[in-house]
Amino acid sequence: MKIKYELISKDKNARLGKLHTNHGTFDTPMFMPVGTLATVKTLTPEELKDVGSAIILSNTYHLWLRPGEDVVAKAGGLHKFMNYDGPILTDSGGFQVFSLANKKDITEEGVYFKSHIDGKKLFLTPELSIQIQNKLDSDIAMSFDECIPYPADYEYAKNSTERTLRWAIRGKNVHKNENQSLFGIVQGGEYEDLRNYSAKETVKIGFDGYSIGGTSVGEDKKTMYKMVDDAIKYLPEDKPRYLMGVGEPADIFEGIERGIDMFDCVLPTRLARHGNAFTPNGKINLKNLKYKEDFEPIDNHCDCYTCKHYSKAYIRHLFVSKEALGGRLLSIHNIRFLIKLTENIRKSIKKNQFLDYKKEFLTKYNNK
Amino acid sequence: MKIKYELISKDKNARLGKLHTNHGTFDTPMFMPVGTLATVKTLTPEELKDVGSAIILSNTYHLWLRPGEDVVAKAGGLHKFMNYDGPILTDSGGFQVFSLANKKDITEEGVYFKSHIDGKKLFLTPELSIQIQNKLDSDIAMSFDECIPYPADYEYAKNSTERTLRWAIRGKNVHKNENQSLFGIVQGGEYEDLRNYSAKETVKIGFDGYSIGGTSVGEDKKTMYKMVDDAIKYLPEDKPRYLMGVGEPADIFEGIERGIDMFDCVLPTRLARHGNAFTPNGKINLKNLKYKEDFEPIDNHCDCYTCKHYSKAYIRHLFVSKEALGGRLLSIHNIRFLIKLTENIRKSIKKNQFLDYKKEFLTKYNNK
Repeated sequence: MKIKYELISKDKNARLGKLHTNHGTFDTPMFMPVGTLATVKTLTPEELKDVGSAIILSNTYHLWLRPGEDVVAKAGGLHKFMNYDGPILTDSGGFQVFSLANKKDITEEGVYFKSHIDGKKLFLTPELSIQIQNKLDSDIAMSFDECIPYPADYEYAKNSTERTLRWAIRGKNVHKNENQSLFGIVQGGEYEDLRNYSAKETVKIGFDGYSIGGTSVGEDKKTMYKMVDDAIKYLPEDKPRYLMGVGEPADIFEGIERGIDMFDCVLPTRLARHGNAFTPNGKINLKNLKYKEDFEPIDNHCDCYTCKHYSKAYIRHLFVSKEALGGRLLSIHNIRFLIKLTENIRKSIKKNQFLDYKKEFLTKYNNK
Repeated sequence: MKIKYELISKDKNARLGKLHTNHGTFDTPMFMPVGTLATVKTLTPEELKDVGSAIILSNTYHLWLRPGEDVVAKAGGLHKFMNYDGPILTDSGGFQVFSLANKKDITEEGVYFKSHIDGKKLFLTPELSIQIQNKLDSDIAMSFDECIPYPADYEYAKNSTERTLRWAIRGKNVHKNENQSLFGIVQGGEYEDLRNYSAKETVKIGFDGYSIGGTSVGEDKKTMYKMVDDAIKYLPEDKPRYLMGVGEPADIFEGIERGIDMFDCVLPTRLARHGNAFTPNGKINLKNLKYKEDFEPIDNHCDCYTCKHYSKAYIRHLFVSKEALGGRLLSIHNIRFLIKLTENIRKSIKKNQFLDYKKEFLTKYNNK
């Protein structure tokens, strides 16, 4: 069965919805934690459920290399392999592959690049990406696209955008997993006409959902939000829209304001590994000496396991002592923070108060 | 309130008992996981309870350096600091300090040594060790002793053993925490008369429990078991006996056979960090290629969270990918393995079948 998006209500362009999948239904807008290698770093599936996480992302490129899609398939698919029974979205591998390839390695057929593990030369094509994802058996697969760098000259962006459309068709043609949905990805770089064109053509091909790719690649925020504007107006209302690689609270608000339903980002777990925590008043670094004797939780009002049981002083001690529990406790808190943020945003959309909540939250978050 | 040991029954010298503490009662013999820096590596207190862990050990030396005993005291003691409401035993710091000191740095007053963190010169005395432990507010504190190396010449061992007795008195004299019990430690190296002497004199000083120290320092197994024999016959029946730093199943059996009630060891968590797991048929290393497509749990009969939910192939993948969840899952399994072992041993003592169970377990464990 394919996923089904149900639009519940709107507050201007902000959408409240439900996404029905073979592994459960969840409310949108929703933030997806990233489990690159079939594990959201340091956490168990039970802990993900505890923080309200409803869907996770896993990386096709990484799983292709380790343990290999055939091992995952023999285990009964990614859900069984990692003991996670909620919905999983897999990316196409494109983002990682392009960061490892030179421009000259990008051909019409696919992309040559070197493995980040052992330098071995590899070749990924739109077909292979889909075939790997079919075997991983995620709920949602992504089309193989080129993530255009920023800035890029117009000719390069145009040629790349057109090739990504041809790749989308090739991928769709080999997509065989009836229980897996397939998303198309809008590219077009920083150019309005290319974004418009890419969105319209991708929708013409027809997918179960649409993603806006090629953002968060070094462009300023204004440009990023315009990339969304230029693409989203051509996306159908009855399909979910996913903004890739976005996890900063301000960007989540801006995305939702424009009609985005799904986000993913390594930010909460990456911040956690380095001792950083989200708070309603912005980020703090727990390694700071000022927390040495601070026996209050990170956030007195936070309902996560970490804030209910541990002080900043203890978490600081764990980080200073390089104890793994520190990263674990902060990962729980940071993921909960973003999940709770989307919960609160959904409530505000329901009450037609999205912009009020956005202002209230960001004023406090930015300490203004 | 001090701890109270209750002897329930005996099977020859093997003892079934209960230890009543201010943080709950537990059955003995019992294995204690080690939480060096106020955290049993990678695990939460809830996970420790889930595996049946009833008491943990934490290291005074390490907590003295980081975060410092005053920070822990301000947090309300070690239990509150680390969010653990079960019994905690702290060691004296002696074991770590002697591994960092030269023989000439050992004086009657105390021991000079260099911090393993920054090389700073430090001085630890029997009084300071107890005062730090008083502030940590563990349930059981240990006397400050010299762990005699193996081999050691007789004169050295004799002088050291006598000094450890003087240190035990000095420590007891400054011990002020009414809610904390204090254990004496029997030394004497590899010499029967010194072990006898140390045991008798330590008991004369009078403690809430007795530990046998200076084992697992390089001696062969036969010598180690004789060290226990030579000490334990002079220890009173109405106090708990603790064999320090022992966690190999065979050694746990041999200790219990001689009348030991408590054990601690970093073995289960250290093994876990390196990808090793206990099984009823001996240890295995999950990083081995042969587990790449082994979708069975580590042990089909194990009742731990890891074995109920994860395959060897998945755990191998986590280790190959250097994912922290791997060490966490193996720590859960390995600690459960030793806790379950002591559970089964207690059952066997109750049925007067300890030696039968020992033979049955070790035959299988040693693959004979």
